[in-house]
Amino acid sequence: MQAEKVISRCRYLEQFTEEPGQIKRTFLSPAMRDCMQTVQGWMEAAGMEVLTDAAGNLRGHYAGAHPTSHSVLIGSHLDTVPNSGAFDGVLGVMMGLALVESLNGERLPFSIDLVGFSEEEGVRFHLPFIGSRALVGRVDADFLATKDSDGVSIAQALTSFGLDPLKIEDCQVGDAVAGFLEFHIEQGILLESEDLSLGVVKAIAGQTRAEMTFTGRARHAGTTPMRLRNDAVAGAAEWVVEVERLALDSPGLVATVGDLRTHPGAGNVVAGQLHASLDVRHEEDSVRHQAVDTLLARAAAIAQRRGLTVASKMLMDQPAVAMDAGLSALAMEAIRNIGLQPLSMVSGAGHDAMILAECVPTTMIFLRSPGGISHHPDESVRSQDVENALAAGRAFLRHLTQQANKEQSV
Amino acid sequence: MQAEKVISRCRYLEQFTEEPGQIKRTFLSPAMRDCMQTVQGWMEAAGMEVLTDAAGNLRGHYAGAHPTSHSVLIGSHLDTVPNSGAFDGVLGVMMGLALVESLNGERLPFSIDLVGFSEEEGVRFHLPFIGSRALVGRVDADFLATKDSDGVSIAQALTSFGLDPLKIEDCQVGDAVAGFLEFHIEQGILLESEDLSLGVVKAIAGQTRAEMTFTGRARHAGTTPMRLRNDAVAGAAEWVVEVERLALDSPGLVATVGDLRTHPGAGNVVAGQLHASLDVRHEEDSVRHQAVDTLLARAAAIAQRRGLTVASKMLMDQPAVAMDAGLSALAMEAIRNIGLQPLSMVSGAGHDAMILAECVPTTMIFLRSPGGISHHPDESVRSQDVENALAAGRAFLRHLTQQANKEQSV
Repeated sequence: MQAEKVISRCRYLEQFTEEPGQIKRTFLSPAMRDCMQTVQGWMEAAGMEVLTDAAGNLRGHYAGAHPTSHSVLIGSHLDTVPNSGAFDGVLGVMMGLALVESLNGERLPFSIDLVGFSEEEGVRFHLPFIGSRALVGRVDADFLATKDSDGVSIAQALTSFGLDPLKIEDCQVGDAVAGFLEFHIEQGILLESEDLSLGVVKAIAGQTRAEMTFTGRARHAGTTPMRLRNDAVAGAAEWVVEVERLALDSPGLVATVGDLRTHPGAGNVVAGQLHASLDVRHEEDSVRHQAVDTLLARAAAIAQRRGLTVASKMLMDQPAVAMDAGLSALAMEAIRNIGLQPLSMVSGAGHDAMILAECVPTTMIFLRSPGGISHHPDESVRSQDVENALAAGRAFLRHLTQQANKEQSV
Repeated sequence: MQAEKVISRCRYLEQFTEEPGQIKRTFLSPAMRDCMQTVQGWMEAAGMEVLTDAAGNLRGHYAGAHPTSHSVLIGSHLDTVPNSGAFDGVLGVMMGLALVESLNGERLPFSIDLVGFSEEEGVRFHLPFIGSRALVGRVDADFLATKDSDGVSIAQALTSFGLDPLKIEDCQVGDAVAGFLEFHIEQGILLESEDLSLGVVKAIAGQTRAEMTFTGRARHAGTTPMRLRNDAVAGAAEWVVEVERLALDSPGLVATVGDLRTHPGAGNVVAGQLHASLDVRHEEDSVRHQAVDTLLARAAAIAQRRGLTVASKMLMDQPAVAMDAGLSALAMEAIRNIGLQPLSMVSGAGHDAMILAECVPTTMIFLRSPGGISHHPDESVRSQDVENALAAGRAFLRHLTQQANKEQSV
């Protein structure tokens, strides 16, 4: 069964890691080179011409029926977070490979360009989407000067890997690319909670990320009466409760305080300062912006009442990105063709598709994530869901073929 | 003015530090040896016989009128926290020295034993009160085997300092000690908020310290809808608000969550776990125990409602310690003698006096802490308050003298 092959390939690639005992494969690492070499071998065996582009992306070309054919891009990323699972990103590349293999050498009226992005997670340079940014021309000299924690710039890292950062513009996809399809595990529990196998992404939620700093006065926990305190922890806790309440009351909104850091952080000292992360996401930017404004105002009101100060630092304001309506409808149709009910859904996570959508009609097909577990060794995918996704992918390619033939015959 | 001398001596001792640019003087450090040498010189100049006992305490003996006189103990500690102020502990030793100096060689019907405790803050071995524990015989072989972060035991550290840990029992005070008086900065803002110079401690609050661990499920902050979360941060925040509310509603109770640690502690991950410190203090042990029970029950209820688990680990259950009623009344009277209104108060912080009170009638006199600032370079004390405390100390010694004379004449 082809699904088993896809899964066993993902498992096989686990061995390419920077840290024994866990999966960790970051941008331009030796582990990434070994991984790419293996995937390149599989791509070539499937009849593809393969190269590594100047941004370190692995790109396999499966030629169409005619040399002048337009191209359909399929893929996802090959890098991982530390202590990752086997499927986040990698699965999308293996899905594209399996779809090419299932053609058995048949040529379509378009070429298929399979891409294994070099960098999506942002681990090494704290900048995500380096691979996909190169495909849409969003990598400039400033970007290439970004340094990792060892002081190595992206440009230097590319050179050390044997690539030429001056040729990074050559990575850009041109007008001949008709669309991009990314398969990815959902990384959430919506499909599972709806008892559905596959979903089609209609939009990728916009994100605000901020750091809030509540400042009071560090005081002796034993000698400072409750009414004479300016306690940064107590103020922040009151606000965290409000963050959750607002999100619960706002359909589709997620708001998360995932990290708290207390100063001085001693059990016997009333905290003088607390840093809190804030992550707010929604498919509509106006809803998200209003929620963030409300949360900042509530933090200010809490701080004022308690004799604290609060400062907010915006780290990210990433607009929502709509997937291509036509291509998403085609993906929904392909899933219905194989007898399944697709879930039209918003992705709360960012993906390479979000970047590609700037230049290319783009859609994503999500596979159910058992338990919603992702970025964790227990991350998994069901064999039946992979089989369904492969069948839907074949149907999707048939629809594109019919469209192309119609256009040619007009 | 004698107060200025006390303050300038405290400032002079700032130079004996393990870390340039801040005051840090821990148990048996080279900085402590230098500090003790200087203080020993001042004590000897005041007519005292000085030795360092087997626990590293500096002990100066100012003989009484008769060789068989009983003894009054005065003192505090010479060690500091990291980045300390100049007065916490040190002031109490300098106060005792100044009181002896103000006798101008006069002999009282009791001797004065001035002690500079070697260790009170618990920095090096995470065990506070090492010096005063030795005076009450609460240092055994197990205790001496405790190791610091470099793997050096207390016994080894004493030996390296030139002391003999086998003689630690010789540190104990005997029946001849009639009382212990400790001067200390308040480290709080009660005296300041009451516009009073001096306070007398009637009890040292009991303390519970615990670590609470809320465990949920780490989930992607973008892909996990609010209603499907088990968020350790949100649950803990709700509980922190309850901790504060309970303490505000309970007279005399202080309850503090000073430290929060989130796991994995990433802005884009719903936290799977959070560790929170809990510090609860009250002068009545039954009130404190009931408050802790209530807070644990509330944590359990919050956890259950949210699909979290919560575990609590008790780190300390230190009973409240009453000061000696007679000696405290004498201290109150001494303050009234100099025309001031004393504040009878509970100490929320632990002190050497808490340990000595096990064996010896004990009281403490608190000096106002400007701004309540302590354990910080900005820690200070007003010259006028030191002058008042010296005058009160002299009156206290006069009362003791009258008592001793009365007893002799009976």
